[in-house]
This record gives sequence, structure tokens and C-alpha cells, in this order.
Amino acid sequence: MTTQRPHPEDVQTVGILGTGVIGGAWALHFLRMGKDVLVWDSAPGAEQRLREKVAEKWSVLEQLGLREGADPARLRFAASLESFCQNVDIIQESTPEHLPEKQALFAQLDALTPDHVVISSSTSGLLMTDIQQDCANPGRTVVCHPFNPPYMIPFCEVVGGEQSDDAAVDWAAEFFQLNGKQVARMERELPGFIGNRLQDAIWREALHMVDNGECSVADIDKAIAYGPGLRWAIMGPCANMALCGGEGGMQRMLDHFGPSLKEPWTRLEAPELTESLYRDMVDGFNASTGGRSMAQLAEELDDCLIRIQQVLREYRDSHGIER
Amino acid sequence: MTTQRPHPEDVQTVGILGTGVIGGAWALHFLRMGKDVLVWDSAPGAEQRLREKVAEKWSVLEQLGLREGADPARLRFAASLESFCQNVDIIQESTPEHLPEKQALFAQLDALTPDHVVISSSTSGLLMTDIQQDCANPGRTVVCHPFNPPYMIPFCEVVGGEQSDDAAVDWAAEFFQLNGKQVARMERELPGFIGNRLQDAIWREALHMVDNGECSVADIDKAIAYGPGLRWAIMGPCANMALCGGEGGMQRMLDHFGPSLKEPWTRLEAPELTESLYRDMVDGFNASTGGRSMAQLAEELDDCLIRIQQVLREYRDSHGIER
Repeated sequence: MTTQRPHPEDVQTVGILGTGVIGGAWALHFLRMGKDVLVWDSAPGAEQRLREKVAEKWSVLEQLGLREGADPARLRFAASLESFCQNVDIIQESTPEHLPEKQALFAQLDALTPDHVVISSSTSGLLMTDIQQDCANPGRTVVCHPFNPPYMIPFCEVVGGEQSDDAAVDWAAEFFQLNGKQVARMERELPGFIGNRLQDAIWREALHMVDNGECSVADIDKAIAYGPGLRWAIMGPCANMALCGGEGGMQRMLDHFGPSLKEPWTRLEAPELTESLYRDMVDGFNASTGGRSMAQLAEELDDCLIRIQQVLREYRDSHGIER
Repeated sequence: MTTQRPHPEDVQTVGILGTGVIGGAWALHFLRMGKDVLVWDSAPGAEQRLREKVAEKWSVLEQLGLREGADPARLRFAASLESFCQNVDIIQESTPEHLPEKQALFAQLDALTPDHVVISSSTSGLLMTDIQQDCANPGRTVVCHPFNPPYMIPFCEVVGGEQSDDAAVDWAAEFFQLNGKQVARMERELPGFIGNRLQDAIWREALHMVDNGECSVADIDKAIAYGPGLRWAIMGPCANMALCGGEGGMQRMLDHFGPSLKEPWTRLEAPELTESLYRDMVDGFNASTGGRSMAQLAEELDDCLIRIQQVLREYRDSHGIER
């Protein structure tokens, strides 16, 4: 029996497997998105804990904005793994990061779940190529790695393993993008994915600096939160670098600051700025701006920088936080 | 003739040397702070260009918040370098990054300026140890490296060279902190200082990823702006990592995620998590929180995350920006 996969817009019921920190937050996210959420977690007390968390966090979801139909009453727990697998339009799995257990779980899910249903893992440290190896129908298994908590932080990475069908990965990317996430649809697996790699680059440089007595933990946090971190909430590091090039954008920036890549300004050595990388950065940046001019990007950066700092100042003043 | 250095609170006149992108923005910053700003720049048309910039950006300074007495009419240009040096309580130098020229300039400034006046450089790429070597009184020469534009981005690093007096560096750190900046007072010189090192770690990892076809420029920017960048506008990477440890904070986080430092999640290898580094991170983080609990930090993060995303959404909606 093969049923066609529904259009991502037509997903009614999201299956949440595991209700720990990540799985529970996924459940909140899809309740906020106005979906039916069916949960499976065999741990004693899981249902009560999740229902308490939903009640506790509902006002946060309201502040973030509820989609039509969003209702905590749409949270249900399945009576068995079998009935869970038979009654969902997509599964988001968030269990502990142990490869053998996850391989066995995916084989079981694959056997119990209709072939057209996409089975997605929240894994941050494992590769779907490894997880899917005992599945009879691995084509519909994918990874959607969120940032925590997924109801609050929009970014996620969607990627398949070697046996995943491109169509299933595309479907998942569209589904999550339609449902409040900002998706990077990756063409290949990469340890650490994208966001954690970038985050780890800062974290490791910070650890080296503290290890060598070059600066304090407080200095590192101050440097980012009152420095580039303010800008990165508005647009990412590439756009911010391109804005250093003024009207000339990324191209002018690379021309001007390319030589500084040779400086020992971090322990990470830069790649050679070849003609090919130069073109990839310039073309890639131009493709990323949605046709907006550098002047428009600069205006957005300035306006939002002012507003964000006002928000932070008002919050801190009203809470007596000195910073 | 030796005059005592005034208390940092009592500085009346800030001397701005150079009116390029950085120097001009410093002039705006100190006008916003309610200071007299005396400028020296011998380039033809410099005065007219800066006055136009002040007029153009004054509304931005108003939105950022003006200190008492802030007035564009308090901007004056010196008739000569000699009269500039004789009539300022501190000099902030922002000329091009050429060491021989900067060495000669500092020797000249040192000869013309009363001994008690601190002479500060905006340099990002040179070391004060090198810049100050031809000064007769190098003790009062320091670096204050800002992020651009300094009237908008609060963070700066204050550090001396080998011949700088600790008292002068401390004085400068206090002066900038009193005048709207968030200062990291560094104990030693470090190529790239703090902020640019952390920023470059991300930028170089991003270049490697594009170079290897691992992801696109758009993916990198999306990963940061909709991921950790949102959190880093509120508190820096160390505090955000510590929040992953829940009530256990940094200590629990290092216990739990320490092993992931061995993962190839960036091209930058992490240092060994020795007992000494472990203690430095835990104690350094605890010293950085101003006595606030993990629960208070978590509440600030959540509340500000919601508000910042509302601000960004409202701005983008009102400007028809799809993102």
C-alpha cells in the first residue's frame, strides 16, 4: 500500500517522538503552528511533564505569535508506538544521541510507518547515512537539526543521508520553512552542520584565549554582545562583512580586506582567497540579498541596531540589570 | 610643566585626529556624549564633509539618546596641529594603518601635547608597542580599538604597549566606559584584539565552508542571523553556552559537552580542557554574571529574544522585506 506524500501545506498531524528538552520544545513549536501534535514517549510521567511545560510556556508562544488554530488541546499522546506511526503525517524524532539505539529505532519506525511519511531526526552529532542503514525504506529518512529551543530560535538545517531521496529532503525543507522555521537545505552531510560549526569556531577561539590568559570570559561575552553580536541578530557575518565594502559590497570588501586573511587574528588559518572562492563569495552574497541594494541593507542594519539596543536598554533598565 | 591628568569624568574637550570613516564616527560619538569636540584633519574639504555627516546623522544620535549638553555646535576644527594638541583633554587618533607614518605622527603628537594628556589610537592592526617607539613620553600612549561605527556599536578594547603606563591605560578604560562605551581593558597586546579574533574565527570557517562547497553564503548568514546571532545580541557566547547547563551553568555545560571539543565541528582545534582551563571558565563565567542566577539569565534571554524578534519582524514587515 503506497500513499502519495501530502503537500507540505497539507500536513495535519506532526508526530513528536521523545519529549526531552528538544522533543518537548518541538511539540510546543508545532502547537504554536496550529497543528495536531501526536506524541510518543514511553518514559513514566512523560505526558504529565509535557502538559505542564505546555501550560507553563503557552504565554511565550502567544508572544511569539500563534498561527490560526493553535490550541494546547491539540496535544495528544499515542497509546502505542504502532498507533503513533499509523496516525502522523511526519515524524520528528528527538531521542538521545546513541547511534546503535537510534539505528534500531529508525528500523522500527521504518517498519511501522507508511512509506510516504517522512521520518526526520533532530540529531546534532550523528549522520543520517549511519542512522538509516538498517531501514528497508531509507529514502524518506532525513535530518532536521534545530537550535534550542526550536519554538524560539528559527534556524534549522535539513539534510539527507546517502540513501535519502532528494525529493524527501526537499519536502522536509519546504515543510519546515512553511512552519515557522528558517531552513538551510544542505546538499551534503557535514559534521557539526552549519550553525554549530560557526558557533564552535568562536567557542574554541574563546577557549584558547582564556587558556592563554589573553582575556577574560567577561571580555569575550562583552566583545560579542556589544560588538558584532548586535549586528548578527539582524544579518549574518557575510552580509556584515559585505557592508564594510560600502556600495562595492562583497567584492570591494574582499579586495580591501583580503590581505588580512593572512594575519594571525585567530588560530584558524583562512583558505587561500583563490579566484574561485572570490567569485563564490561575491556571487553567493549577491544571490543572498533578494535584489536589495547595499544602501537598503545598510539602512536596515542601522535602523534595527537602534531599535534592538533600545529594546535591550529598556528591558535591562526595567529589571535593574547593570550592563 | 607637568599638569595632573584630570579625572575621566572631568574631560571637557575630546581631540579627534583624522576624519575618515572611523575618526568621523568618533566625532559623532563624543558630540552625542555632550563633549566639546576639537578636530584636526589637514585634508582639503575635511571640515565641510564632517559637518555634513554630523547634520546627516544627528537624528540617529538622537535616537540612540543624547547626553546632557550634546550639541552639533560643539564641533570645532583646530587651526593648526599645535593648537589642537594644546587644547584637548584626550586625543583619539584615527589615521591610515601605516606603521612608519603612525610612528612619526605619535612622536610629533607626543612632542606637542602636554605630558598628562592621554593619546589613544583607533588602530586595529598595529601594536602600540611599535607605534610608541619614537615617543619621548610613551607612557600616556594607548590603543582604544572601536567597532564601526563607534557611535552605534558600544564595544571597544583598551590596551597599552610595553612602554605605556598602567595608570594611563586604566584612565582611558574608565574614560571610555564613562562615555557610552563597553570596554574590555586588556592586560596585554594580542593581534586582532578580542572582538576581531572571535569574528575572524567565524569568517574564516565560513570561507572554508564556501570554498569546499559545503554550504552557501546565504546559508551561513541565515544560520547566524536566525540562530545563535539572535542570542548573542543579548549575551555573549560563554553565557549562552553556560545556559545550556541549566542551573548547573558553565560547570555542568563543560562536564556534559566537553567531549564535543574533540569533534571535527570546525577546522579550529580546541585546546585541551585541562583542570586549569576548566576552572578559568567556571570562575570567569561566575565572575561575569554580576551575581545573577542562571534562572535570571535564562529569563533575560527568553524575554529579550521575543522582543528582538518582534522588533525585527515589525521592521521587515513595514519595509516589505521578505526574510
